[in-house]
Amino acid sequence: MKPPYYAVIFTSTQTSQTRGYKQAAQLMEELAQEMPGYLGIEGARNSDGNKQGITVSYWETLKDIARWKAQAEHQGAQRMGKSDWYQNYTVRICKVEREYSFEQ
Amino acid sequence: MKPPYYAVIFTSTQTSQTRGYKQAAQLMEELAQEMPGYLGIEGARNSDGNKQGITVSYWETLKDIARWKAQAEHQGAQRMGKSDWYQNYTVRICKVEREYSFEQ
Repeated sequence: MKPPYYAVIFTSTQTSQTRGYKQAAQLMEELAQEMPGYLGIEGARNSDGNKQGITVSYWETLKDIARWKAQAEHQGAQRMGKSDWYQNYTVRICKVEREYSFEQ
Repeated sequence: MKPPYYAVIFTSTQTSQTRGYKQAAQLMEELAQEMPGYLGIEGARNSDGNKQGITVSYWETLKDIARWKAQAEHQGAQRMGKSDWYQNYTVRICKVEREYSFEQ
């Protein structure tokens, strides 16, 4: 992708209540793809320790990010995240200024 | 941390050659902490699929990021990363404009 564009870095640690989490994460990924300005999403979660996870989604503009945050099903998932799934999380809204890649 | 500050999003998939990787990753984390402008680091790697990993390091300025990229041991690790450890990676240099957190 060609900068500038925007990234949302979502770092979290999970609780032991993971009921419904996987399905919701899958659904959110599908719904995000239908949103205007969506550029992509990447995620990883450690299987050990505090099970820290990092999800980064990429967007064309800050407005696209605000629209996704306000999306109805996503709002529901955010409520479930707070009540059940996450011990803690941090959201960072970033402007991607440069990028470069390597491939074998 | 109080924005604005900078984030380096490093996303990668590994090869099957992981010899020396863990020790190097540990050492890089220790060395980064000694660099000027270092604010923190977070990382996660999936244990399944293509073993995608995301590491995000946080810095006060772009100059701090450039200095860390040029650091001698880090340069050595970057060479090992290309020759041995990574199938592919992308580095994104970002300005963190907003952040908010949740904790149970």
